[in-house]
Amino acid sequence: MIRHIVLFTWTEDATDEQRAAVTAELRKLPGLIPELRAYTVGADAGINEGNHDYAVVADFDNVDDYLVYRDHPQHQEVIAKHIRPILASRAAAQLSV
Amino acid sequence: MIRHIVLFTWTEDATDEQRAAVTAELRKLPGLIPELRAYTVGADAGINEGNHDYAVVADFDNVDDYLVYRDHPQHQEVIAKHIRPILASRAAAQLSV
Repeated sequence: MIRHIVLFTWTEDATDEQRAAVTAELRKLPGLIPELRAYTVGADAGINEGNHDYAVVADFDNVDDYLVYRDHPQHQEVIAKHIRPILASRAAAQLSV
Repeated sequence: MIRHIVLFTWTEDATDEQRAAVTAELRKLPGLIPELRAYTVGADAGINEGNHDYAVVADFDNVDDYLVYRDHPQHQEVIAKHIRPILASRAAAQLSV
């Protein structure tokens, strides 16, 4: 299995509406990209100080399936329209499990 | 469920032995901390440029169980002895799923 992990921080001027739209749009992707085996997305729960603002954990059967997701036009559209406009920083890794 | 997510980058002088020790030591924790429901740890798979070096995804039934893990002496010992000496940067979030 490949587990894809991304953490974001948002710009200070990101609105609640813009933040909520990221979740709403990402949650459409499992219905559009059948290679997604499991998909956990959402805002940080606010337990600890100094955290990133947002996390995505996506599981795939193999690297090829992850690449389908990474490069999928509807995923790229969410990135371009909803993530990049409020993105301050990004941290990512993929684990082979 | 609470999903705890951490990404690390290592210092340039971190040795292969030091990096491997992080995985070996973290993988002992599920046997010591029964609150850990699922635990995925490991080095980045090298698929993409610019990634962080290491990832941890830990699942718990609730926030209290996560706090037991976060503050557990044997977890703190792995952080102090094996992670902090080679740590360059850290990004984290907790999701309420």
